[in-house]
Amino acid sequence: MDVSTDIASVAGFRVASVDAGLRKQPAPDLTLIVADAPYTAAGVFTTNRVQAAPVILDRARLADHPDRIRAVLINAGCANAATGDPGLRNAEQCAAWAAESIGCAADEVLVMSTGVIGVQFAMEKFKAAIPIAAAALRPDGWMDAARAIMTTDTRPKTASITANGFTIAGIAKGAGMIAPNMATMLAVIVTDADIPHDVLQRALGQAAAATFNHIVIDGDMSTNDTLLALASGTSGVQIGADPSRFGFTGALYRVCKQLAQAIVRDGEGATRFITLHILHADEPAHAYQIANTIATSPLVKTAFYGGDANWGRILAAAGRAGIEFDPAKLALWYEEGEKEPAGGLQLVANGTPLAYDEAQANAIAASPEVTVTLDIGMGDAPATVWTCDLSHDYVSINGHYRT
Amino acid sequence: MDVSTDIASVAGFRVASVDAGLRKQPAPDLTLIVADAPYTAAGVFTTNRVQAAPVILDRARLADHPDRIRAVLINAGCANAATGDPGLRNAEQCAAWAAESIGCAADEVLVMSTGVIGVQFAMEKFKAAIPIAAAALRPDGWMDAARAIMTTDTRPKTASITANGFTIAGIAKGAGMIAPNMATMLAVIVTDADIPHDVLQRALGQAAAATFNHIVIDGDMSTNDTLLALASGTSGVQIGADPSRFGFTGALYRVCKQLAQAIVRDGEGATRFITLHILHADEPAHAYQIANTIATSPLVKTAFYGGDANWGRILAAAGRAGIEFDPAKLALWYEEGEKEPAGGLQLVANGTPLAYDEAQANAIAASPEVTVTLDIGMGDAPATVWTCDLSHDYVSINGHYRT
Repeated sequence: MDVSTDIASVAGFRVASVDAGLRKQPAPDLTLIVADAPYTAAGVFTTNRVQAAPVILDRARLADHPDRIRAVLINAGCANAATGDPGLRNAEQCAAWAAESIGCAADEVLVMSTGVIGVQFAMEKFKAAIPIAAAALRPDGWMDAARAIMTTDTRPKTASITANGFTIAGIAKGAGMIAPNMATMLAVIVTDADIPHDVLQRALGQAAAATFNHIVIDGDMSTNDTLLALASGTSGVQIGADPSRFGFTGALYRVCKQLAQAIVRDGEGATRFITLHILHADEPAHAYQIANTIATSPLVKTAFYGGDANWGRILAAAGRAGIEFDPAKLALWYEEGEKEPAGGLQLVANGTPLAYDEAQANAIAASPEVTVTLDIGMGDAPATVWTCDLSHDYVSINGHYRT
Repeated sequence: MDVSTDIASVAGFRVASVDAGLRKQPAPDLTLIVADAPYTAAGVFTTNRVQAAPVILDRARLADHPDRIRAVLINAGCANAATGDPGLRNAEQCAAWAAESIGCAADEVLVMSTGVIGVQFAMEKFKAAIPIAAAALRPDGWMDAARAIMTTDTRPKTASITANGFTIAGIAKGAGMIAPNMATMLAVIVTDADIPHDVLQRALGQAAAATFNHIVIDGDMSTNDTLLALASGTSGVQIGADPSRFGFTGALYRVCKQLAQAIVRDGEGATRFITLHILHADEPAHAYQIANTIATSPLVKTAFYGGDANWGRILAAAGRAGIEFDPAKLALWYEEGEKEPAGGLQLVANGTPLAYDEAQANAIAASPEVTVTLDIGMGDAPATVWTCDLSHDYVSINGHYRT
């Protein structure tokens, strides 16, 4: 059951992307995903206190009728975040136009937005483009959609898997933000498996917790982060109440992991992909807190950019994570590639540096893919986080640098 | 009672700096500060779980005999952090050599170290240089000392104030870290006021909480951060049990603020000095948590580097700070200079963007000094944090960039 980076079509869904003129440069920026009938859906959203209008709208609709979703309208170019009540009304109006174009109830449409924060929608552009998208719907429009939702992404992000008679496929965008201000991660996953909405929601939440919630580019959580899943049931494969039946949760995890890692690999300005394992914390939340503190440390990230095995910065970041541990028990390994924990070159044991080969350590740190393992020596809980380095290009992209 | 950026001498103290050969380039790197007699001392230390040997040693000595400190030995070039038991024994040995050179008990000497993490001291260099420093002690060596403790700092940081018959003076270093790994903020404050050690400790803790603990360069907390204060009492001005007597706490606050702000202004690669006010949080800890999240946001910091008034990033960072608030109550102001809260150009009211002049907002954001005020609209508690932008030079300095 291998995950593919490609995506063809999924029974029960059609998709189209058009240029509504929302970007500065002409390019498709409006995507409409339509289900052949009202389907089951689930969503995972940003926990930021400042939530964009599309997040507020989708949350309400999924809470109200998660078994009756017909379409998802996605736009780039404007995040519809920090736009107050007018922004919420605009999101509802766009959903209503989409519903009218495809012939369904207005509240059966979800919306996702990415782009500038603090700017209202240019509504006439949406009104004109939505019917054009509805007229262009086709089963194999997914790769175009993956491109149409990109902002600072340099490549489309897709994943699919077919196993035991059903398919799960997804698209995602996310790399960071760009001037004056972009809101980031969006992902849509579709499947032809037949699965109750509450089971889908639970499975999606668990998959996201282990994948999308374990990636770090810059530690800045967006106001718009949204992951939606829609299930058509058209394959006839009935998952039922246990989502692990027919390997559904395993397949969903693989698709989410593929998309999540693709976001990190395409991180703004990223030159290295770093797999960070924390071992033997007291509980998973502690392991994750330490991993996240390391992964967001500018000093750790710039050291990786420089290809320097500056492991002291990793220990220093772990030490300020707010988690109790004994520094004298720390152990640390560096290894080239995306690997399992505690392999490769050991640099630290019992909190004290070993007599390792500095050149070898730096060669590992300068690899395109690096695995770092930090053993806390406290308990039984591990965590893994995927992250990238912090480069000059990140600063250029986000500083809107004018040379 | 104005604070000066200069520092001449303080009765009861002598200081010397020599080149012990601890740096890659020849320059004074070892500083010895000696009190004429055992004096009262106080210290504030990093809360990082991974604590350097000098921090462990000083904590123990100040806990044991805060009224009997004769000297502080400070070295650049090696942080003596993540060095295990051998590192602690080395710190004790260096203190013993200093004690021998000046003729006092070994445990009357405190030590501070900054430089590479994870490397043991070159002990023979310390052994040779410490007696040379002891022989060179003089009352007016402070500016040389401020230079000798610098690492990536581009200029020495000094402050002094004389009022009501006593003087408080201090030196500090700190700007960030450099390859392979530097440990950061050190500050020593001396006064000729006569003040009990517990009163000095309380006053120092309060001053640090409002100054050194409210500066952010990159959010990476060092393993070595140490602030020490020594009081000789030679002025004859008796502060007694109330540290605000004779304006002592006010003077101490001014000296600490001057040194703390000097660290931010000299932040690695910094091009802008940003004063960030949070208003109307429920409690000071909430206001500080929001301020700190904004000040450590790479997206906020790169936006300031670019001189873009990307205020959406400030709201987004506030929203992920983990503090409850109502986004519909947010208000935001930008103003040029280091100013009081809520002045200048208002960009946001009631969580919704106002029709402000974009060019004017960008002109403010592109100033060398910018004040940002975010009103949370919840309660009565404010906080102020001083920070700087995130530039290409920060990445170059910390990435050990090799062109």
